Amino acid sequence: MDSRRDFLQKLAATAAGLPLIPLAAPAHAAATPAISSPAAAAQHAFYNKPYQGPVLRVAIMGLGSYGTRVAEAMQSCKRAKLVGVISGTPSKIKAWQAKYNIPEKNCYNYQNYDEIKNNPDIDAVYVITPNALHHEGVLRVAAAGKHAICEKPLAINVRQGQEMVDACRQANVKLLVGYRMHFEANTLEIIEMRKKGEFGKIQFFQGLSGFRIGDPTQWRLNRELAGGGAMMDIGIYSINGARYMTGEEPVWVTAQETKTDPVKFKEGVDETIQFQLGFPSGAVASCLSTYSMNHLDRFFLNGEKGFAELHPSTGYGPIRGRTHQGELTNPHITHQTVQMDAMAGIILEGEQPVVPVSGEEGVRDLAIIEAIYEACRTGKKQKL
Amino acid sequence: MDSRRDFLQKLAATAAGLPLIPLAAPAHAAATPAISSPAAAAQHAFYNKPYQGPVLRVAIMGLGSYGTRVAEAMQSCKRAKLVGVISGTPSKIKAWQAKYNIPEKNCYNYQNYDEIKNNPDIDAVYVITPNALHHEGVLRVAAAGKHAICEKPLAINVRQGQEMVDACRQANVKLLVGYRMHFEANTLEIIEMRKKGEFGKIQFFQGLSGFRIGDPTQWRLNRELAGGGAMMDIGIYSINGARYMTGEEPVWVTAQETKTDPVKFKEGVDETIQFQLGFPSGAVASCLSTYSMNHLDRFFLNGEKGFAELHPSTGYGPIRGRTHQGELTNPHITHQTVQMDAMAGIILEGEQPVVPVSGEEGVRDLAIIEAIYEACRTGKKQKL
Repeated sequence: MDSRRDFLQKLAATAAGLPLIPLAAPAHAAATPAISSPAAAAQHAFYNKPYQGPVLRVAIMGLGSYGTRVAEAMQSCKRAKLVGVISGTPSKIKAWQAKYNIPEKNCYNYQNYDEIKNNPDIDAVYVITPNALHHEGVLRVAAAGKHAICEKPLAINVRQGQEMVDACRQANVKLLVGYRMHFEANTLEIIEMRKKGEFGKIQFFQGLSGFRIGDPTQWRLNRELAGGGAMMDIGIYSINGARYMTGEEPVWVTAQETKTDPVKFKEGVDETIQFQLGFPSGAVASCLSTYSMNHLDRFFLNGEKGFAELHPSTGYGPIRGRTHQGELTNPHITHQTVQMDAMAGIILEGEQPVVPVSGEEGVRDLAIIEAIYEACRTGKKQKL
Repeated sequence: MDSRRDFLQKLAATAAGLPLIPLAAPAHAAATPAISSPAAAAQHAFYNKPYQGPVLRVAIMGLGSYGTRVAEAMQSCKRAKLVGVISGTPSKIKAWQAKYNIPEKNCYNYQNYDEIKNNPDIDAVYVITPNALHHEGVLRVAAAGKHAICEKPLAINVRQGQEMVDACRQANVKLLVGYRMHFEANTLEIIEMRKKGEFGKIQFFQGLSGFRIGDPTQWRLNRELAGGGAMMDIGIYSINGARYMTGEEPVWVTAQETKTDPVKFKEGVDETIQFQLGFPSGAVASCLSTYSMNHLDRFFLNGEKGFAELHPSTGYGPIRGRTHQGELTNPHITHQTVQMDAMAGIILEGEQPVVPVSGEEGVRDLAIIEAIYEACRTGKKQKL
């Protein structure tokens, strides 16, 4: 996954010649391209002026490759700060302590992290464990009275996800899902244009989400830990994207599964699924989820009056966007930096993001995933 | 249809800055971009040297907008010549006679064109009538002992199509289908690259075929004359493209129909159909056929080692292509000019095109269309 994303990132940056805006570098602001999206402009302004408000103090649970990426990105955050870790690997904890200056008292393992309840220096925990462990992680974080940020997918089924939503509500803590694209500037500009009617009536969305997965021993290919296959990990981007790009909730789904490598992709681990969604307006979506193909990562939104394309659409960026009006030119800011700062605003200030990142949002995607799996199994259209 | 295609043609020509090669203009040859495809190079060479071989003498049946386009394109042909017309409208015949210098003895109407049998100056008839009339037209052309070129779709169902194939075989005349993309240079280069293995194992094809249809009174929206809706007219490009781009024949199909305007698109006239194909290798295709959307016309072929995109993919050109190796730069030549010269070679010299344009090819597409309609009706996967 990472190697492919690095590739896409390099490719996009090279091909587009997009400016990589240095964070908190006001001197460069004048040289940046025009920012036409209010949401993107607000983002850009935020990173170009001093910040003196409250800061969300975050512990990361799960110090794997994505946790590492989030930690690195958080070094540029202004409203969120990495202050603690939860890991089953003492050597990783030591390395992170040294690298990020994390005090011993903010370090936990999977046996003792319920004690975080008594730690006044941690506000929230970002759960970045394998999918099947999100449920227990979030329940215990909520029980400890801390806000939970959970990497997507929220859980491995609707039942788990709903329990997590309920537990956080009862504990009076926030539950947010790590949908970083909900804060990406070109994505937000397209959503703003759609809301203003610039594409006219929306008719079609296409999402191509996938990459060729490497190491067959990784947890993403273990049904017990992943809860599925490509759909849980990368196909979910097309599901989520279909919703935020069209602005509608699907009412039916059909799906077709193809498995070309049953050794690598065992029972219950989907390799390739094509799925189609229907929306109340009559708009339809056509999507691909796969662990066997590169050269994808494209969203296409088509309306009566215009279109939008994101390509790459959900890689780590820069995201390239264009519409019938031309290229989008919002500067790239590291997704996880923006995400964590925005989530700090949601948790600390009650801010409302343009596209929700609540636990309920995560449950909706899981309901669609369950329907897709059922459609694959039965060959029948599933109502949602 | 035409207005959209004109739009696409202008858009593509402007955006790509592609050279429009003047036919038979050897002086310009040195300035043209590199032609890396052998098929495209052969095409280009053909138009840049004198030709003194035999010429196919063609009558056009049906003098509508597409027939007019073919007639215009044939003025640049070297191996094919427009020599006759068949029409039910005397004023059109007069106008064509004047414009193309067609002698009175080569003009027929729908009552008397069987007499073409006794006309030694006509070798072939290009049937460009509404879809439902192709069957009768080709049967009568075959009975007259003339070669038949039939616009796509070959017919409105497999039974008709097979009868046309059989009739032409028994009459010992050729039956060709007007699949102009089978001779388009960038398309051919991608097919050559695929055959050489440059994309590796093919995994995915995507075809987006559609446009927003205008005049609701046109025959294309009349089930009796069209035999269906968008699928018969424009969706067939994605079906045919899925086959020539992957080089495989599909073994299953699923499909979902959506109708947002039942007044314009009456019973039996499909507006929008999403369909999916599965191939023996495990490759899959995801396609869209619609009469309600613009901004489409894109083919995408994805393999283990690379990808190809055609966008626009089947408009009247120029066709823009790119692969993982970069942009394709074959010069544009009017599709119908190349098609008719190539078909003259097939009929007069027994030449074999890279992708067949035989009646059997047309029947295969019709069989897939019938399965798509059945999949829409039943909601079930159809085996092919």
